[in-house]
Amino acid sequence: MNDMTKISELEVGYDVPAQIGMDEADIQTPCLVLDLDALERNIKKMGDYAKAHGMRHRVHGKMHKSVDVAKLQHELGGAVGVCCQKVSEAEVFARGGIKDILVSNEVRDPRKIDRLAQIPKLGARTIVCVDDVDNVPELAAAVVKHGTQLECFVEIDCGAGRCGVTTTEAVVEIAKAIDATQGLKFTGIQAYQGAMQHMDSYEDRKAKLDAAIAQVTDAVEALKAEGLEPELVSGGGTGSYYFESGSGVYNELQCGSYAFMDADYGRILDKDGNRIDQGEWENAFFILTQVMSHAKADKAICDAGLKAQSVDSGLPFIYGRDDVEYIKCSDEHGVIADPKGVLKVGEKLKLVPGHCDPTANVHDWYVGVRNGKVETVWPVSARGKAY
Amino acid sequence: MNDMTKISELEVGYDVPAQIGMDEADIQTPCLVLDLDALERNIKKMGDYAKAHGMRHRVHGKMHKSVDVAKLQHELGGAVGVCCQKVSEAEVFARGGIKDILVSNEVRDPRKIDRLAQIPKLGARTIVCVDDVDNVPELAAAVVKHGTQLECFVEIDCGAGRCGVTTTEAVVEIAKAIDATQGLKFTGIQAYQGAMQHMDSYEDRKAKLDAAIAQVTDAVEALKAEGLEPELVSGGGTGSYYFESGSGVYNELQCGSYAFMDADYGRILDKDGNRIDQGEWENAFFILTQVMSHAKADKAICDAGLKAQSVDSGLPFIYGRDDVEYIKCSDEHGVIADPKGVLKVGEKLKLVPGHCDPTANVHDWYVGVRNGKVETVWPVSARGKAY
Repeated sequence: MNDMTKISELEVGYDVPAQIGMDEADIQTPCLVLDLDALERNIKKMGDYAKAHGMRHRVHGKMHKSVDVAKLQHELGGAVGVCCQKVSEAEVFARGGIKDILVSNEVRDPRKIDRLAQIPKLGARTIVCVDDVDNVPELAAAVVKHGTQLECFVEIDCGAGRCGVTTTEAVVEIAKAIDATQGLKFTGIQAYQGAMQHMDSYEDRKAKLDAAIAQVTDAVEALKAEGLEPELVSGGGTGSYYFESGSGVYNELQCGSYAFMDADYGRILDKDGNRIDQGEWENAFFILTQVMSHAKADKAICDAGLKAQSVDSGLPFIYGRDDVEYIKCSDEHGVIADPKGVLKVGEKLKLVPGHCDPTANVHDWYVGVRNGKVETVWPVSARGKAY
Repeated sequence: MNDMTKISELEVGYDVPAQIGMDEADIQTPCLVLDLDALERNIKKMGDYAKAHGMRHRVHGKMHKSVDVAKLQHELGGAVGVCCQKVSEAEVFARGGIKDILVSNEVRDPRKIDRLAQIPKLGARTIVCVDDVDNVPELAAAVVKHGTQLECFVEIDCGAGRCGVTTTEAVVEIAKAIDATQGLKFTGIQAYQGAMQHMDSYEDRKAKLDAAIAQVTDAVEALKAEGLEPELVSGGGTGSYYFESGSGVYNELQCGSYAFMDADYGRILDKDGNRIDQGEWENAFFILTQVMSHAKADKAICDAGLKAQSVDSGLPFIYGRDDVEYIKCSDEHGVIADPKGVLKVGEKLKLVPGHCDPTANVHDWYVGVRNGKVETVWPVSARGKAY
């Protein structure tokens, strides 16, 4: 769908929330709006950081699910590729022209493995995670069938409590099995500590990452002793990238949310005790919403509810306003406390959602805005690609 | 997209989770699965109830967002039309052939009003809610422009705390303004008590509905005294339809979730103290998920997380299993407690999500299953239609 000719033929309000050139005030709500200036500053800042610290930055495409945002991260932020969580997402990025793709997840379903093994034919280096030695022959059979190569990361569970092995012995066993298998290449380690990213305190986050780094270092030393030095050791998120960068063992970051920011990440504190959305990163990602009813004097009802966002990490806040508050959410309505009755029917507000990733996944389009005008309309290219 | 020729050309795993005729075991996960037998029984049961009680049933299309499910509700359940919450949803249903459509919500944005006023041209009776006398001339200007007619419900806030007026005086004032306006017709009352539907106790729900019925009756009596007897008094949900049916004032139901069921509704109790998913309604709506990692002995990781469901009303339960429990959710992963280690990688499980409406809105497809085979693949026709 990333074809501007086709997008320009779509109907505003039915197919798309806006068209390029439209005034910001005419965008149909609720929809996702990107502040392009802020987005570009965030992307450039993280890119500069990674470069200055000698880290590769493999941006997390599962956050935005957008080929266009990924390309901007390559152009402005020096990204070396993307990671994503699903084979169907990887296919979208490969078809969109991304050349280095990590599925930062295990793939076990036979049909999914068969699809994964064909992604190199789309021109992308393709890496996948493994946490079970039984997965190795499954992957091997598919690459032999398709005459391709898959690279493999062994995934270490360094605290997230999801996929991944927990012992150095298991890491070495799986790496050896991969290394001994035709069509597969042992390329490195996946070690993302997802459970600490949203802890408020910098020191608490550091303690979790110190433990993760020790665990990963132990595995890497054992691999080296077996002649299996990993080319890439990959991990890190918006709440931790400075720890991985200084670890001496990681050489690749996987940050995602820094580009957009959200309410839940925004609340965590940097090492000086400041919220990270008050200096480190800017809010670039909003749900634009409109007041549709104000029949009660102290409450306004807006048109963004549960179908315009995910509230798993809490309710959104209203950007730039402290006189009104989003206090309740149902399927298609948001209730806004408006104690002084300052809001008018038809007025538009920008919400910063609790959690950017699953909120982006609800929408079909990003409306990119600069200087009060719609500059871009980008599809959420991998929206619904959950397989 | 409701064109089976086109759907059959789509790629399984990239575009669609399944194709018609496929074995249930081969469906790509995570995706929505409908048990067609259970769905049909639910639809027929509510249809029979409405008929036996002399109630019109305007099914709530915002729940499933599917033209195909709405048509089944017409055919098997005697539905008289649909309601939905957004103009863009109403457009989908009108284009899909539904002939009686209520936007059970206020429409205030000029572009949305302009679109709404054109829906009658698609062949559908079109009704919209009003809770502000200032909305009347806005609607009137649009119907004059397009040479159409809109019917109007005055919305009463009978306890939901969202849109709607709270006094009989306001109801009468708005009804009079509508009645006096060319191109608009005062047709009735919208009075949906959304805030009580999920209260566990039947008696607690009844108390809230008794208050709502008294409020609505007062308004209807006042309207009659002004010569403005409403043709339709509409409301009622899966947790309350028996109260509205016995009220003597409502004549139209708006149930939605009964057709699918979900974990949050399933927990509420009928008048005999039984969960409504243990007799009154059947679970017909599932997220099919697959175990993708079992690297820790007591935990299985499945592929359905926050991007496959909404957890606003709690986590899903695993259908038909009490030996394993879905205990944690992140973007693309679900953590399943498996204390006895009974699950195998690759095994598929059916989840009953907490809340059906926003869960359906995340997906592009319903896979309809009967006797272990895929019988239908239906688009979630109005998915993403939030405008």
